[in-house]
Order: sequence, then C-alpha cells, then structure tokens
Amino acid sequence: MTESNAAMPVNKAPKHNEPPALLAAIETPQDVRKLTPEQLPQLCSELRQYMIANLCNNPGHFASSMGAVEIVVALHYVFNTPRDRLVWDVGHQAYAHKLLTGRREAFASQRTLGGISGFPTPLESPFDTFMAGHASNSISAALGMAIADMQSLQDCDRKTVAIIGDASISGGLAFEGLNNASNHPNNLLIILNDNDMSIDDNVGALHHYLSDLTTSKSYNRWRHKAYNFLRRKGFINEGKKGRIIRFNNSLKSLISAQKNIFEGLDIRYFGPFDGHDVEKLVKVLSDIKDMTGPRILHLRTTKGKGFPEAEKNPAAWHAPGKFNPDTGEKIRKKSPNQPLLWQEVFGHTLIELAEKDQRIVGITAAMPSGTSVGMMMEHFPDRAFDVGISEGHAVTFAGGMAAAGRRPFVAIYSSFLQRAYDSIIHDVAIQGLPVTFCIDRAGLVGEDGVTHHGLFDLCYLRCVPGLKIASPLDEETLRSLMYSSLSFNGPMAIRYPRGAATTPDWKTPMRQLQPGEGRQLTAHKESRIAVLSVGPIGNQVTKAITKLAEKGIYADHYDMIWVKPVDEKILAKVAARYDAVLTVEDGAVNGGFGSAVADWLTAGGHSLHIEKAGIPDRWIMHASVPQLWQQCGLDADSLAQRIEAMYQTVTTENPDSSYRK
Amino acid sequence: MTESNAAMPVNKAPKHNEPPALLAAIETPQDVRKLTPEQLPQLCSELRQYMIANLCNNPGHFASSMGAVEIVVALHYVFNTPRDRLVWDVGHQAYAHKLLTGRREAFASQRTLGGISGFPTPLESPFDTFMAGHASNSISAALGMAIADMQSLQDCDRKTVAIIGDASISGGLAFEGLNNASNHPNNLLIILNDNDMSIDDNVGALHHYLSDLTTSKSYNRWRHKAYNFLRRKGFINEGKKGRIIRFNNSLKSLISAQKNIFEGLDIRYFGPFDGHDVEKLVKVLSDIKDMTGPRILHLRTTKGKGFPEAEKNPAAWHAPGKFNPDTGEKIRKKSPNQPLLWQEVFGHTLIELAEKDQRIVGITAAMPSGTSVGMMMEHFPDRAFDVGISEGHAVTFAGGMAAAGRRPFVAIYSSFLQRAYDSIIHDVAIQGLPVTFCIDRAGLVGEDGVTHHGLFDLCYLRCVPGLKIASPLDEETLRSLMYSSLSFNGPMAIRYPRGAATTPDWKTPMRQLQPGEGRQLTAHKESRIAVLSVGPIGNQVTKAITKLAEKGIYADHYDMIWVKPVDEKILAKVAARYDAVLTVEDGAVNGGFGSAVADWLTAGGHSLHIEKAGIPDRWIMHASVPQLWQQCGLDADSLAQRIEAMYQTVTTENPDSSYRK
Repeated sequence: MTESNAAMPVNKAPKHNEPPALLAAIETPQDVRKLTPEQLPQLCSELRQYMIANLCNNPGHFASSMGAVEIVVALHYVFNTPRDRLVWDVGHQAYAHKLLTGRREAFASQRTLGGISGFPTPLESPFDTFMAGHASNSISAALGMAIADMQSLQDCDRKTVAIIGDASISGGLAFEGLNNASNHPNNLLIILNDNDMSIDDNVGALHHYLSDLTTSKSYNRWRHKAYNFLRRKGFINEGKKGRIIRFNNSLKSLISAQKNIFEGLDIRYFGPFDGHDVEKLVKVLSDIKDMTGPRILHLRTTKGKGFPEAEKNPAAWHAPGKFNPDTGEKIRKKSPNQPLLWQEVFGHTLIELAEKDQRIVGITAAMPSGTSVGMMMEHFPDRAFDVGISEGHAVTFAGGMAAAGRRPFVAIYSSFLQRAYDSIIHDVAIQGLPVTFCIDRAGLVGEDGVTHHGLFDLCYLRCVPGLKIASPLDEETLRSLMYSSLSFNGPMAIRYPRGAATTPDWKTPMRQLQPGEGRQLTAHKESRIAVLSVGPIGNQVTKAITKLAEKGIYADHYDMIWVKPVDEKILAKVAARYDAVLTVEDGAVNGGFGSAVADWLTAGGHSLHIEKAGIPDRWIMHASVPQLWQQCGLDADSLAQRIEAMYQTVTTENPDSSYRK
Repeated sequence: MTESNAAMPVNKAPKHNEPPALLAAIETPQDVRKLTPEQLPQLCSELRQYMIANLCNNPGHFASSMGAVEIVVALHYVFNTPRDRLVWDVGHQAYAHKLLTGRREAFASQRTLGGISGFPTPLESPFDTFMAGHASNSISAALGMAIADMQSLQDCDRKTVAIIGDASISGGLAFEGLNNASNHPNNLLIILNDNDMSIDDNVGALHHYLSDLTTSKSYNRWRHKAYNFLRRKGFINEGKKGRIIRFNNSLKSLISAQKNIFEGLDIRYFGPFDGHDVEKLVKVLSDIKDMTGPRILHLRTTKGKGFPEAEKNPAAWHAPGKFNPDTGEKIRKKSPNQPLLWQEVFGHTLIELAEKDQRIVGITAAMPSGTSVGMMMEHFPDRAFDVGISEGHAVTFAGGMAAAGRRPFVAIYSSFLQRAYDSIIHDVAIQGLPVTFCIDRAGLVGEDGVTHHGLFDLCYLRCVPGLKIASPLDEETLRSLMYSSLSFNGPMAIRYPRGAATTPDWKTPMRQLQPGEGRQLTAHKESRIAVLSVGPIGNQVTKAITKLAEKGIYADHYDMIWVKPVDEKILAKVAARYDAVLTVEDGAVNGGFGSAVADWLTAGGHSLHIEKAGIPDRWIMHASVPQLWQQCGLDADSLAQRIEAMYQTVTTENPDSSYRK
C-alpha cells in the first residue's frame, strides 16, 4: 500500500472566508458528480482549506473531519445522494459532507444558536439520513434502511452506506449490527474509516486486530507462495473462492493475522486501502457499489490530514478550539486565576483519594481527557481503565471490580451513560455494589446540542432502588461527595456539568456528608417562597435571589445536594414555613428532582404551591449554555422573574405574610 | 470429536424426591472434589434425575440446565470454589450449580415466595459471585474480578471463570467484554457453552460462525497437509507458534473457517470439545486452569441433554411448566375458554394490522415466542425480525426501518428494554421516528423475580420528549392502541404485563384512540375519592371499588390509558370534584404515572390529597404475581383498605361531602 500524495498539506488558509475555485460552484453533490476524477484531489484540498478557515474561528471537531475529506468526496461522487443513503457514525467525520450538501454558507454558524448542528441530523437536511451524535449506531440503522429498501418495489435499487470509525466499531451496538448484517438479504456497504484513533487513544483488541490487518509486513512476501500452494492443494480455486477465500484481500488476513473478523461474520471484506487517495477510492467504490450482500470496505486514514500540527497530535486536535490557521498555534482564553473545570476537580480529587485508598480504581469509556480519568491513568496506570466506546462494559466491569473488593469511580458523560442503564440496574444496583458513578456533562452542554445534553439521568436513576443521587453546588461539595461515597455500602451517582466550576480555590478539605442532608443558603424573615435547587444551577438561583433582594422581594434558597434520598427535614420545614416552593434543576422536569419534591410534599398532604424550573419536555438544540439556560428559563434573570411572579401570586392570595410563622 | 456416552438418558425419575447415592452426600463442592473422576458421570446422572423430579412439579428453566450438568460438575471439581469465582451468564444453565452448593433441599422452593431464586444471585450464596438474570454480562463482570484479583497481593492466585452461552455471547455487552479482555493483565477463563440455541432459535452471523468452527468436515482431511506445508515454508514453527498459530485447535479454524474471532481479539482459543464428557472436561480444565492470560474454552453441549423429549425439541423445553417425568407429557392447565395471554393478543393483532398495512414490520430480540413476534415470523417471514440478544440493535434497526418508511412494532420485555434506552432516545425519539414499542412483561412478572420485573419503563420513558406512552386495561384497548399508533407521526410505547388478559372474547373491533384521552369507569354521587389507574392493574381497582361499594364506601374509577400525554381533562375534573386522589400503577412509584399526576396537579396549584400506589422503592424478589401484588399493596384487598383509609381521613377532615360539588 502506498501512501497517496493526493491530499496536499494546506497549512495556509485563505485570508478571507470565500470558497476557492471548485468548491464555490458546488451547491449539491450533483455538482460534485460533474467534475472529472482528476479534479477531485483539488476539491478535497479546497474543502480542507475551507474547514481550516472556518474552524479556526468557530471551533468544532477538527481532526476527524480533516481525515475523512476524500471519503466524503468519493462517496458523493459515486453514489446518487440523497436517494442513496449515507449513514454517518458520529458526525465528527462529516463536516465535508455538510459543505457539499448545501450548507457551505451555513457552516460558519455551525454549533451556534440558530445555526446548523455539529452533527449530521435528519432534522436539518435530507442528505443526513440518521442522527449521528452517539457512536456505533450506523450499522444497525443502515441495515434497517437497506433491508427495508430491498423489500420495496420502488426502492430496491437504492444503496445504503454506513461510514463508521474504528473506535465506534468497538461499541457493542456496532457489533450487534455486524452480527445481524447477514441475517436478511440486503446490500449494505459499511465503510470502516480506520484512523487508529478515538477521541483519545483507541483501546481494545479489535483495535490491535485492525492494525495487524493493515501493517503486516509478511503479507507481500508470502502472499503469492501461499496462494499458489493453497490453490494447488485444492483449498481454494476460482469456483470455491466464495467459500474459502472470497477475495484476494482476505488472503492477506488469512496469512498475516489468521483471521478476519468480518468474514467470520459473513460480511465480505475489502481492503485495507488508502483512504486519502480519492481517485482510487472512486474506482474501488464504483467496483463494489453494485455488488450484492453486506460488504465492508476498510480504509486507512490519518486524523487531522492536511494540517501538520493536527497530524502530529491528533488527540489534541480532536476539538482544538480557536487556533491560528497559519501557525497552528492554539488560542487559549484561560487565565491562571480561573476556576478549574468540574472534570478537573473530579480528576485531581480522584487521585487524592486514590493515594490514600488502595481499593480505588477509575474507569471511563473512551473519554479519558473529557472526564479527566486520564489524569488517574497517568498517576496510577494499573488502577485506571479506559475501556473504549463501551459504556455498558464500563459499568458491568466496575460491578465486577466492586464485587472483588475495589471501589470503582466510573466517569461517563450523562447522555452516554444512557447506554449503560441496564448495567447500572442489573450489574450494580440490585447487588448493592459500591460503585460511584461520576456523571460528567450532566445538564445542558451547549454547542454539541440535542444528542449530547445530559438531561435524563435524574429521571432514569431516581427510580432505581438503593442508588443514592447527589449533585454539588460547588467544588467543596463535589470533593466531599466523592469522599463520602467511600463510606457508603451501596452505589452512588454524583452529577456535575460541563465547563468551569466556581472558584480558583477549589482544594478544600473533604468532609463526611450525610445522605439526604442539604443546607439552607439564605434566610430572610420576610421570605414566603423557598427555592430548592440541586447542583451548580443553584449559582443562578443565588444571583436571582440577590437581585430580587435589591427590590425588596425575598426568597430563601436551599441547596438540597441530594436528589435521593431527598432532604425530608428541609421539606418538612418548607411545607410548614413557606407559601410556595420553586424547585430548580438542570435536567428534564418530568420525573427528576422537582418530581421528587412534589412526590414528597403531596404524599404528606401539604397544600403549598409547587412550581418546577428545569428543562421543559421538548428537544433542546445547540447554542451556548447561557443562551440555552435562557431558553429554558434557568438563567438568573428568568429565575428572578419567575420568583417575582410567584411572590405576586402569594401576596395577592394572602397578604398576611406572617400566618405560617 | 466423539460424542460422549457419559451422560445417560434418565427418563425415569425416582418415585420420591430423595437424592440418590452420590448426590445425597454432597453439601458443598468440597464434597464433589472428594470423588474420583470416574464417579463424576454418575453424579451428573443423579443431578439430572434430581432436576427432573423437582422441575416436573415446580416448573423452571429446564433444557439449559440439563445441558450444563457436566460443565457445572467439572468446574466445581477442578476449581476451588467459592474462592475461585464462577460467573454464570444467565442462570438458566446453573441449576446443577445450585444443587452442589448447599441448595439441594431448597431447590424444591425455587422461584416461590421465600424460596431460592431461579437465577444465581450473590444475595443468596457466596458461590453465586454475580447477578445472572440478564444475558451477556458475565465476561465484563468476570474481567473486573480477574483484573482486581491479579492486582491484589492476597488474591492474585484466585481464578475467575465466566460461563456464557452461545446466544448470550452475541449480545453487544459480551462483545465489549471480549474486546477488552486482553487490555490489562488477567487470567480470565471464558467457557463458551455452545448448545446452538437461544430461548428460541439462535440468530446472527456469530452463530453460523460457531457452528462452522465445530462442524467443518474438511478439517481433519486438510489439517496435517496444511500444517506441514505452512511449517515447511516458515509460516509457523514451534518458536513462532505463539505469533502465528497458538494452538493446534486454532489451526482448525484457520483452515476450515479462515478465521477465529476470539484469537482475533487476542484471547487464546481452545476447542471445541464435547461438553458432556465430564472426565475429559476435568482433564482439559486442569490443563488450562493455571495458564496465564485470557482464554476461551469452546464446549459443545446439547440443550435438554438426558431427557429425550427435551433433546428433540429444546425450545419447547426451555421452560416447559409442569410435566410427567416418566412420559415427558406436559401438563397443561389452560382450558379452551380462558383468555389469551396479553402477548398473544399482541401477536394476533400485529398480523391483523400487517395484513392491511404493508409498511408494518415486527421486531424482537431473542424473544419471538415470549413476545409472540414468532407468530408474525410465521405469517410474514420477510417482515418479522428476531435479531437475537441485541436489544439496542433491535431498536436502532427499527429506527432505520422507520427512516425508510416502515412502521416497526418492536416487542421487548420491559426489563430487557433497559438495554436499549439510549437507542430509544437517540435513534428513535429525537428523530421523531414512528416506532411502536410493545413493552411486554411490564410490571411484576412473578417467579422470575428481581431481575425480570418490568418496573422502571414508565420512569425512564416519561422524560423522553415526544414519546407517547399508554397501557391498556383490556384487550380491546391494547388492540386499539396498536391500531392508533399507526396514525401518529412519532414514537409510541404500549406496555402490558406477563400472563393472561381479561376475556376470551378478545377479538373486538379496533378504534382510533386520541392521545391523552382516558375514560371514567365508575361514577357515584357520594364518591369523594378518585382512583386513577393505568394498565391492567386497574382490574384490581375495579374489584376493590366493587367490594367497598358493598360497604357503602364509594370511589370513582378512571382508566387513564395514557401516561403521556396524561389526560388533563380528567385531571382538571378530578381536582375540582374530589377530595383525594389515589393513583395506581404496576410500576416503580418514583417518577412514573403517579408522579405525572402529582406533577400536573401541583403545577396547577390544586390542594387535594394525592396518594400513589405502585411498586415501592425497594427490590422485589420472586413469588407469584398475586403474592407480590399483596406485598406491594396492589391487590384488590390492599387497595380497598387503602381507599377506605383515605375515605376515613377525608370524611374526618371534612364531614360535608358536598362542598366540592
């Protein structure tokens, strides 16, 4: 395999944001298909320049999309999109796809309020056939489409292509899709975009396997000898080829790695090929496009291709933020006196605890840098585990470790933890195993949008018996919750959001917290409204209450800390002392913390007025977190308005402010 | 491979339940280890007799456990249990394990109130190292134990063995476990109990692959020739064996199937061997017991082994109910005039709808007989899909089908649907795809116990925007809900329980239902309490209300049908008309239907007293469904008592019954 020179490094971005020669004329993939194959390398180069020029100012996922440019171009060139269906697995790779499908101008608005999404989404374009925010779903979804089309009179000639990365394919869902790919007649084509990288280093045996497939040195030497022998001895012949060795390429795996997992799953395997040689890709895709049955095409690509800094350090350039397009220098905003990120406080605290308690292990699922479990991996390589895109395994593995006496801290983003729901119930909670779930990215996450907000965890966890659930207002509480979890017998969930915590002086002593024990933050004798918040959104409440106090309107603020068990002492006091309650949470309002409060108060027959602030029962798209708070009525101003309105109602209904005291 | 004669058919059960010669002396596996290898076939035979004699009267999972007897005996013989850890994957196979680990006497009480569980559970015995109710978790859990032990000074010599069936290993979680098995040093041994069967027929490419591995006829013929050639040419030599072909056995897969998936995942592969030759098993296990690194031992077994009727038709003998131990005749209780099972009403109705609407497809995940999707598979083989133990894939696949214009009905048990939670959210609901989830086994399931109750679905689904949720009181409503779902644009969930529905005359016309439209079942002018129920548990409410009316205590009953959207008209009426509300649901009380009612009423500032009947916030074990209803206060008598108590409170607080009217 020779590396292609087709994709030229393009470190120099144009001074202005205007599309260069070829790209400017492309409104739909139909225009791509008017080009000659020889023009495609130039188009790829222009796409890269355009991405660099945009992403340096409007940050997004950089390296994956740079690496998939030729794949995108070749697919739209060979297939009749959107009639033929491309199913992207995780949209990181698909920016060039957006640029070729009518969203070039909109690209500058990507991930911003009212702009296009950072991921392919059918809510945005007919070229985006399926939602692509969570990894590993493309094969299953595309298989559904491919089988449905094959059974349809008018659609049986439609093609479906799933494009999946080598990290995504290690997820259990992808394996389930592969395992089912040959069960019913279909012509699904799977493209394995193998860039040897997940967000962080790729892990898992499949990863080693793929790299074996690709790099075997013995292949070329032995290939002809072995092939000739096997044919002579009758192991293979042209007729038997289908049964014994379907294609020349699979001989490679037979000899060099002794196995081809995909052929083992009855999927015809082609490759590996250079995923940056766009003209070759066009030829290969044209060759296999009309073949029948499920097929996989294995392409090797370089993450960050075309931007040397990113090629050198693709993990750092996964989502680099703003950067200088000429020098590759990243533009940092962070000043030394800023608070740490929540995840960093978690990471430092985990190490601090692990130093004192040998039982502690850290576990994450392909998010070591995103969750800071990577810090633990550096300090205690034996006691920190990145299991790859395998959230279910991460949790069940933690259950096994806990059953053997360890104290696992499992750090996973809230929206991805949805994948481990049954493992949480069956493999941890029923058995009362002491696993601490550190739920990162809980609440609104901002620019990543609808698929990445962590809004449901309180709802789906609150019903699980024996699981304690808490969320800290500040670093000190996060640290104390982590510390305290070690003293509990059963499982516990601690949720905290994306982004910066509250203070540069985060390294406070940890103290033992009692489950179901919140705290009162403000008290005023004139208060007739109690505001009960859980988690860092409480900092918006603090601002709202301060603001209202300036107007002479008073509400008392309680930081409940615990969603389960909920603080019944505070609730009893609230029921006796106030006219109205407002619950505030950065999560779905149907069934979460506010419901826990309402459940308790109504069960006790208390008649005070209860309102709930939280994420309303609709899908929330992408924008900055403050913009989304505003949309959902969770920013300080909206909360102040709501409390003021409640105050008006309360005082109108009963002007005597002292009747409950 | 020669079939062993060791496991003799034992169709004749002893007249009495007394353990025969060897088994009677075995209280712990220590006693097994005192036997000679030659005595083990006799012990296996006795275990089978004992199981037959018991299970014919106290039904359980039969065929799987009959097939795993030799594996159980050999493992306890070779390994030092419970210090060495056995991790069973789905407890169906593990009855003999229970019989050898101090639960022989208790076996007769299995699955009954106060008796032992039908699954291995650490809540019951130190020999049960991990919960084994849901498939595919054993590798991940055992890997956690094996790595933890290896890192521990005092436990580094402990062995861990995961025993997984060929159906379970097709689950995504099992693949994630396999993919991670070689990442960190460990000595995990995986036993693949390959009986070529799931609950129903096994599906998936991996299944074909395993059977290829086993049955290849060309193997013996080509083995020596190929081996000699490859060695001569330098592909393999004794030194390189580790790199090129680790064991003679893997040569088999190299030649016959060109691939060994497990070796591809860096797991040493041994087998296949006859899983019924207990003396051979003891030898093989002794040989590989102390080897380092992850290993898989592939054993071929026969489901139902030792009971000819079960061997002939293992699917029918998976959980056969009561039977005659001498003749193998099953003892049926069902009379012709009994109601159908809920699942049967679903199955018939699906076919009825599918006959009129070409878009409809049926999908299940290894539960075609349990859900009755099998009926659809018979009628429309192309339009019904059993994807094997792959709940996530089932749902994402349905999403893909829906995106291509189909109307999928996905029937999965409630507790297993937990595995597809993220797929429901990400691959269906966000995209508003019209998938109808038919959630079978929702609510208490009885004898299968804590891992199988379907208690959380209302809680984990209610927070998902755009998802309609309903539960029918009767067959007519189930049918109408299925019919109506076809007229909705987005996804919908319909939940119904295990067991018999309500009437033999189930085949009523289907009518269009409106989302969020319930119905009043009873009305009495003296009623001061409204009972709002959802689902078939409402039939207990009907009985309770009838009973109370005889005492002159009246409550009005509303069948709400919809959990989401909840019937706001009824709620407004209830708030205005009654003094108190009791919500009744066969599901977790934290965040489900009752919370939806409380959320709405409190948001409206209504001050009436709200009580919620449902499954309390603790784990519910096994017993009959009526016994469990009683435990949870959901049987007619308990509900009557509760309503009566509410009535006393209401009339004490406000004797004037007419003040709201």
